[in-house]
Amino acid sequence: MAIVILPAGMTPQAIRDCAAKGIKAVVLAAGGFAEVDEAGETLQQATSDAIRETGVRVIGPNTSGHTSTPHKFTSSFFPLGKIPRGNISYIAQTGNFATHTMRYIKTAENFGVARVLGLGNKLDVEESEVLEYYARDPETKAIFLYLESLKTPRRFLEVARQVTRSKPVVLLKGGATQAGARAAVAHTAALASDDRLLDGALRQAGVVRIYDYSHLILAAKALASMPLPKGNRVSFLAPSGAILVCMTDLCQRRWGLDVPDLEDQTRQYLQNISPAYIRMRNPVDIWPAALVKGVEFGYREGTEAVLKDTNIDAVVVILMITDETGVPSLDFIVELARRYPEKPLYVTFSGQKKHMDAAKAFLEPKGVPTFPMIEEPFEVLSILTRCRQAMAR
Amino acid sequence: MAIVILPAGMTPQAIRDCAAKGIKAVVLAAGGFAEVDEAGETLQQATSDAIRETGVRVIGPNTSGHTSTPHKFTSSFFPLGKIPRGNISYIAQTGNFATHTMRYIKTAENFGVARVLGLGNKLDVEESEVLEYYARDPETKAIFLYLESLKTPRRFLEVARQVTRSKPVVLLKGGATQAGARAAVAHTAALASDDRLLDGALRQAGVVRIYDYSHLILAAKALASMPLPKGNRVSFLAPSGAILVCMTDLCQRRWGLDVPDLEDQTRQYLQNISPAYIRMRNPVDIWPAALVKGVEFGYREGTEAVLKDTNIDAVVVILMITDETGVPSLDFIVELARRYPEKPLYVTFSGQKKHMDAAKAFLEPKGVPTFPMIEEPFEVLSILTRCRQAMAR
Repeated sequence: MAIVILPAGMTPQAIRDCAAKGIKAVVLAAGGFAEVDEAGETLQQATSDAIRETGVRVIGPNTSGHTSTPHKFTSSFFPLGKIPRGNISYIAQTGNFATHTMRYIKTAENFGVARVLGLGNKLDVEESEVLEYYARDPETKAIFLYLESLKTPRRFLEVARQVTRSKPVVLLKGGATQAGARAAVAHTAALASDDRLLDGALRQAGVVRIYDYSHLILAAKALASMPLPKGNRVSFLAPSGAILVCMTDLCQRRWGLDVPDLEDQTRQYLQNISPAYIRMRNPVDIWPAALVKGVEFGYREGTEAVLKDTNIDAVVVILMITDETGVPSLDFIVELARRYPEKPLYVTFSGQKKHMDAAKAFLEPKGVPTFPMIEEPFEVLSILTRCRQAMAR
Repeated sequence: MAIVILPAGMTPQAIRDCAAKGIKAVVLAAGGFAEVDEAGETLQQATSDAIRETGVRVIGPNTSGHTSTPHKFTSSFFPLGKIPRGNISYIAQTGNFATHTMRYIKTAENFGVARVLGLGNKLDVEESEVLEYYARDPETKAIFLYLESLKTPRRFLEVARQVTRSKPVVLLKGGATQAGARAAVAHTAALASDDRLLDGALRQAGVVRIYDYSHLILAAKALASMPLPKGNRVSFLAPSGAILVCMTDLCQRRWGLDVPDLEDQTRQYLQNISPAYIRMRNPVDIWPAALVKGVEFGYREGTEAVLKDTNIDAVVVILMITDETGVPSLDFIVELARRYPEKPLYVTFSGQKKHMDAAKAFLEPKGVPTFPMIEEPFEVLSILTRCRQAMAR
């Protein structure tokens, strides 16, 4: 394989030179093709000709390269250093992802990736083929895509229909609106498609669409160490009635999550550990129990009770940690995550920043994802519930 | 004034004792009233009787107290220490806010508050009266409320109609859905109202509704040091086409923000500082200029160009800061914020966590709000644009 970092104009000849030396695969880093001007379009055509004539397989041009952590390999020119190995794989039609977004993931999060590929102008290798490869890849548990166009929509949908039976496929499609499509033309010369038509086809193929760039990171982080939820029935524990009320509102209004009644025995147990004045239910107001029996006891017993409950598919723990109310050891959360591996368990906070940061640094390397903003774990559950539904269709 | 921290059963007598000593105002901290059980309801009635008979003014019961930073005063039992003085005032029908949410604000953010009041069961002082007081308060620039019920809806709407002509009023109404309303009954015994009717009335009164608990903090932080946007026309600068495309999509799809064409002279200037291969427009792909002329130069010149533009009401700078691409001095952002005080200027990031944290610590005390997640400044602009529209109605 050759990584070609030469001015755009030298690209067609470079491909022929590689082929002459028996090189079968080339990564083309240079930009300056159809995304720029008419001269670039002509050059892109000449590059296409060279690819077709030589049969060399090409990623790019205009790509930030590809990374495979199992092979300890990268073709990226952006010096990221060692990227942690993990089970999430990305396909991105933007140079941004394999570079500064990976820099963010590496420095702000605690999950690793299996493969990351920047498609560039996708003269040869395109999203359908990469998706097919990731589908067969034993290192890849979940696939996240950022695309501004589909090169071969029919093939992509066919491949996706297969892949999504076994792995979650989450897509952020840039240029979904008129204004966004104009911006996409400026970025990758992507042509707008009819978004409503595409939306229906993607849904039928089991692809879950998202719209927030940051969800490419947050949902991946949640999937990296936790299973998909089996359904949309969520329980959560908070130290505040207001937070319980607001999150319940949003579960119904925005997230498609159900906050069901607990089993009688769960409710009874929660009642037993709580003062008589509070009537325990789902969602779980855990603070009265924490006040009476200690923060660690309240959260541990409360969390285990709802994890055990057969009415519940996923649990969000909203931890209160402040100097005033106490900073419990969080070993119990790691232990519970190990004992109930079939249910996602996420942590978020209401409290003091330094303790939130410490909890993240403690919990995430041990496999429990945390989220600084209280809505984020629910946003993620909403996405992953749709993934589960798509896979089970 | 007396702060009464006694068991609930002693409350009616305590009010009478206070009145007998000539005390005219009482804060009642104890819970255990109508939010709990029937005995509590009876006790609440007896407390109401004592209030009516004595004419003592009462906050609570079941309140976490009130804070006034200009008076260096708090009646809260939660030992928060010194709360930074500022221009944001909160009214909260939950004990949560004046306690651990304030602890979060104090430790994770860099803005201060003027007044914070926990309403508790609002037997006497209720939201309408507090809103009226905040309206006249010269220390208060913007008012944020969390409510689960309106005690006197007609009065509240009348007051709000007046207040919102001069100050933004942002409301998170807990219990907006059926499921949320059930949770609210458990929390504050709030009775559900018809949310659609309420929604229309609030809109007519100029109150801006939000649904995310974290927006009570993020929108407040933005308003604390920046003006309201004059309109919904936004420009933003990013180091990545993908981010420009995604944020443009969301501006149109979700946020009601316009990403208009720039003035000719602005566009021309941006073109002059950029390499010829990139066609400059709004939103602004600033990386080519940054690559050629330096990160600081590119962002400084680009940001000033769009701040000057009369087509633009607010600017979001998406800063790329990594070891690899350089960590510019951010003095220029503070300087630009000073020179263009009529336009909101927010900062978010694509890059390396430690540099993001350092930028926040540098910029926020100097009056430029930053946001860790790339969508957050736009979410905030969407809320504040609605505030401006409500005030101008």
